[in-house]
Parts: sequence; structure tokens; C-alpha cells
Amino acid sequence: MTRTIVESKTKTVTIGFDEPFCVIGERINPTGRKVLAAQLEAGDFSTVEKDALEQVACGAMVLDVNAGVVYNSNPNPNETEPPLMTKMIELVQGLVDVPLCIDSSVPGALEAGLAAAEGRPLLNSVTGEEDRLEAILPLVKKYNVPVVAISNDDTGISEDPEVRFAVAKKIVERAADFGIPAHDIVVDPLVMPVGAMGTAGQQVFALVRKLREELGVNTTCGASNISFGLPHRHGINAAFLPMAIGAGMTSAIMNPVRPVEMEAIRAANFLMNHDANGSAWIKFSRVLDQVKEGIPFPEASQTAAASGGGRGGRSGGRRRRG
Amino acid sequence: MTRTIVESKTKTVTIGFDEPFCVIGERINPTGRKVLAAQLEAGDFSTVEKDALEQVACGAMVLDVNAGVVYNSNPNPNETEPPLMTKMIELVQGLVDVPLCIDSSVPGALEAGLAAAEGRPLLNSVTGEEDRLEAILPLVKKYNVPVVAISNDDTGISEDPEVRFAVAKKIVERAADFGIPAHDIVVDPLVMPVGAMGTAGQQVFALVRKLREELGVNTTCGASNISFGLPHRHGINAAFLPMAIGAGMTSAIMNPVRPVEMEAIRAANFLMNHDANGSAWIKFSRVLDQVKEGIPFPEASQTAAASGGGRGGRSGGRRRRG
Repeated sequence: MTRTIVESKTKTVTIGFDEPFCVIGERINPTGRKVLAAQLEAGDFSTVEKDALEQVACGAMVLDVNAGVVYNSNPNPNETEPPLMTKMIELVQGLVDVPLCIDSSVPGALEAGLAAAEGRPLLNSVTGEEDRLEAILPLVKKYNVPVVAISNDDTGISEDPEVRFAVAKKIVERAADFGIPAHDIVVDPLVMPVGAMGTAGQQVFALVRKLREELGVNTTCGASNISFGLPHRHGINAAFLPMAIGAGMTSAIMNPVRPVEMEAIRAANFLMNHDANGSAWIKFSRVLDQVKEGIPFPEASQTAAASGGGRGGRSGGRRRRG
Repeated sequence: MTRTIVESKTKTVTIGFDEPFCVIGERINPTGRKVLAAQLEAGDFSTVEKDALEQVACGAMVLDVNAGVVYNSNPNPNETEPPLMTKMIELVQGLVDVPLCIDSSVPGALEAGLAAAEGRPLLNSVTGEEDRLEAILPLVKKYNVPVVAISNDDTGISEDPEVRFAVAKKIVERAADFGIPAHDIVVDPLVMPVGAMGTAGQQVFALVRKLREELGVNTTCGASNISFGLPHRHGINAAFLPMAIGAGMTSAIMNPVRPVEMEAIRAANFLMNHDANGSAWIKFSRVLDQVKEGIPFPEASQTAAASGGGRGGRSGGRRRRG
């Protein structure tokens, strides 16, 4: 049974076929968030702090941290991103005790994040591109961490799912050459927008099953891509996530501060028999009661978290007592 | 490719692996509805009329009709149910042009419904019980209609999915002895409440896949059973339906006057590539816009249906032109 172990200072989260779906909070990322990017360049981390606390309260089990700001004062991310990543990692792990997902396209920023992170973070990401394989896999091996493997290569992103499977297989094999086991590779099979490609959903479901059965790897995705450009996106996302979970998807990088998607995931966990006695569902239903009364989801979740309810995931403490 | 054809006077609905999920509206049923039962005994069909129009507007592609009233004036349903079934079938098919699902435990009422229904109704239901097989299968053969086959037998409902599969297989084989093809059997694998049995969801998903792969049959279920006894039932239902559809379920007997569940089904159809260009989703999103503004779902759906939007299914007319 494939288990990918990620850890914070004191907590363990297991991504696995027999585990609740792992929600990786995507919010701490300045890409496409101009206000956040400007704040980060100015040394203002108030949004990062808020995003860290809210996402964990809403059920994120792992937090993605991306420091990809192109500074106005210095346009070279190779110089600016590593120290910003260090700062952000230190800040976030000082606030919340969940494993982190270190997210960058700059190898220096990934290494800075690996050096700063406590526990066993997830590295995000390697692709099938030759220069990425050569730059990232040695870091994965050196720090003994799991890594997200995105199924594109030097030819780009294929619309053919068989090609994307082949790229994933190549990454797993190349990782094995470095002594990295398959259970430390979390494959992102790449989710296309269903509005642009009608087969997008079925492609992902089939790929996830195949990746699981043939390569024995855990999987993740940028879940909201599926609904890009469509009206009522949350409705598409909230059907996509349970269907992906039913097909065997074990994690997603997503916005956990959305009650519709989180409700769908909690329900799917229950229906997969990954919520013993429905206790997580019943706790979550109290948060939904408050949302129905008009209380914003993050606030309702924070209240519930403070009183011991509504938190996702399993604590390392609990697991270690077992 | 398994296709179960049901018809009204002029419309054809195909239940099949490559078709949009078939929503069978469950509302026209006095079981557990005391007011409706009293109305029916008194000859008041106003609720039936409302339920027929609302369900079709909301996206029901087939309407279940159950006349199971135990009259205060005559406690023998064998005498009272057949004429009531005839009356209700005639009324409903005079109002809406969708195929009907004739639902009774009284064989005389089933035959009365078969005699009254135009087109090719679905018969609901036979079980693996010997007396039911002997009573119902000859009717199925005589009227050349498809039938819902419920996976319980003389020993009751098994908690073991393998036993329920074996019962379904027995019904399919017995039907074959009568010359009834497997594509005219729509198996209900029986959905248990996940609150009482943690494996209930996984059982159904595995059974649906197996019924499809090994027996080649379409499937249905009483979808809301899954969430019996739980808080925020619609959230469980709205995850269950896409997961069941992803596993291969092709229809459900359910309440279509619920926007949450219908949104989940519309999204799942799109994600299964059973909604070309997302046109049904986009039409439905206009109904959701109105619901968001406070207009009740049936009303918003009726407005959309009147203007040609928001209707589910495929018309016989369209299919016949193809």
C-alpha cells in the first residue's frame, strides 16, 4: 500500500490509498495575486499569516508555499526568491504546525525552502523536462523528501493521456535511478479544462486509476483547472473532486477556504470509508450550520477548530500513539 | 453497448453507459406522504399534477408513479390500487410527455399501469424472491418492457455485496429464460446508509462496476438512502451521485426538485463527456443564477423550461432526426 509521508515539526500527514484525501492549501502564492506580490516585496506578511491560519482552520492538511515574486526593484528571481522563500517558510511554520509543500520553479528557492523547513516537506515540483530532472532529483535525494511530478516534458503538455502517463513513468524510473522510491513521487497527471476538452474529466479519472495500478504512486492535481472558464465553477469542482477521489486520486492542491469544495471532499472521504463513524462529517456539519446562518466559512471553521472540531487530517501525535 | 430504451407517447429516453445520467423522479408516491395518500383516496390529484410538472421542469427524464395508498374505506390494495394506478398514469401522461416508471408491489397494479401507459414504460420492480420472479417476469415479457431488478431475495437484503451480486445475476438469468434480454434489466444493487455501514459507498461503487462489466446491465438506486440519518444529507448525496456515476451507475430514482443533487448530476454528466460543449451545464447555470437570487428551484426551472433552457435529457424527436 503506497504511503507518502510528509511531516511538520510535530505532525505527520500520510498521503495514501487508504487515507482521507489530502488537501494541500494553495493560497500562499503570489502568482496572479498582485496585491500579495507587492506586499511581499515590501516585507508585509500579513496576508501570508491570514492565509496560513484560515487554510488550516478550513481543513488544509498541508500548506503550499510559493515565493515567486518578480521584484520591481530586482527582476532576477534567482537572487530574490530564495531569501523570500526562507522567510515565508519560517513565518508559516511558526504559525501553524502542518507539513509544507515547497513550491518554486527556481531550484535555489527550492533548496532554500528545504533548508528552512522543519520535518519532511513535499517538494513542488519536478517535470519530465531533462534540465528539471537533473536539477531537482538530486535535491529530492539529498533531503529525502517526496516530490510532486508533473506530467509534461520538453515537448510541452500533451493532450494525449497516454503520453502524460509515459512522462510520469519516465520520472518514476529516473527517480529510481537516484534511489528515490515510487512512494515518494506524487504524480500530477495534469487536469485540462473540461470546457475546452470534453474528455478532460474522463482522462483524469482513467489516468489516476492507471497511475495507481501500474506505477503504485499517489496523485495530486490543480483541481480548479477542470472548471476554467465555466459559469458556476464551484459546482463543477464539487463534482470533480468526489469523482477523482472515487477513481483513486489521493490529494489536490486547491483553495480550502471554499465550503462547497470542502463539503464535497468531506463527503467523499466518508463514502470511501475514510471517516470512521462519520465523526469528521458530523463535526464539519456544525461548521456548515454556521455557514447557513451567514457566518463566513473561515470564521466558522476557526471557531470550530478552536473548540476541537472541524479540523482535517490526522495528527502525528495520534498516529504515533497507535 | 447496453442501452435500455424507455418511451412516452412521443419521446425516447435511453439509459446507457454513454448517455447522460437518467433521473427518475420519485415524488409521485404516497408512501410516507400522508397528505398525498388522503388526497388520492378523496380523488384530489392536485399534488400529483404539481409533482409531475415540477419534476419534469427540474430535469426528471422519467417519472415514477406509485399508487400504493391503503384506503381507509377499503384496506385491500389488490382491489383499490389497480384502478388508482390507471387513473394516475392517465393523468400524468396527459400532463407531461416523459416515459413513466410503473411502481408497485401489487402485480395487478403493475398490469393496470402497463395497460394504461403509452409508449414503453419501465416496470418497478422485480426482486430475486421466487413469487415475484414468477409474477413479474411474465408481465415484462408480455408487454416487452424493461424492469428494475432489486438485489434482494427470499432471504432478505444481504449486507454482503457478493450475495447481492449473485441475486442480480440470478434475476438476469431467470429473465433470459423468459426471453428477456439483459439490456432490459436495470439492476438496483441496494444502497445502504453510510451512517450505519461505513463500507456502504464503496460497496455500491464496486457493485456497479461489476454489474456493468460482468452482466452488462444498467443500474439504478434509491440514491438518498446513502445519507439516511445524517446531518446535511444533501451534501452526502451530492458527492455520492457523481461518485456513483463515475463508477458507472446510469440512473437513480430520486427527488429532482433539489438543486444541490441536480447540480451534482449535471456537473457529473459534463465530466463524463455526456454534455456536448457543456451546453446543458450552461443552460442549467442560468437556473442556478436565479436560485441564487432567491427564486425557488422549481420555479426557476419552469421558467427556463418554458424558454427552452434548463431541460435535461434528449428528446425522441432529436434522436429520431439523427
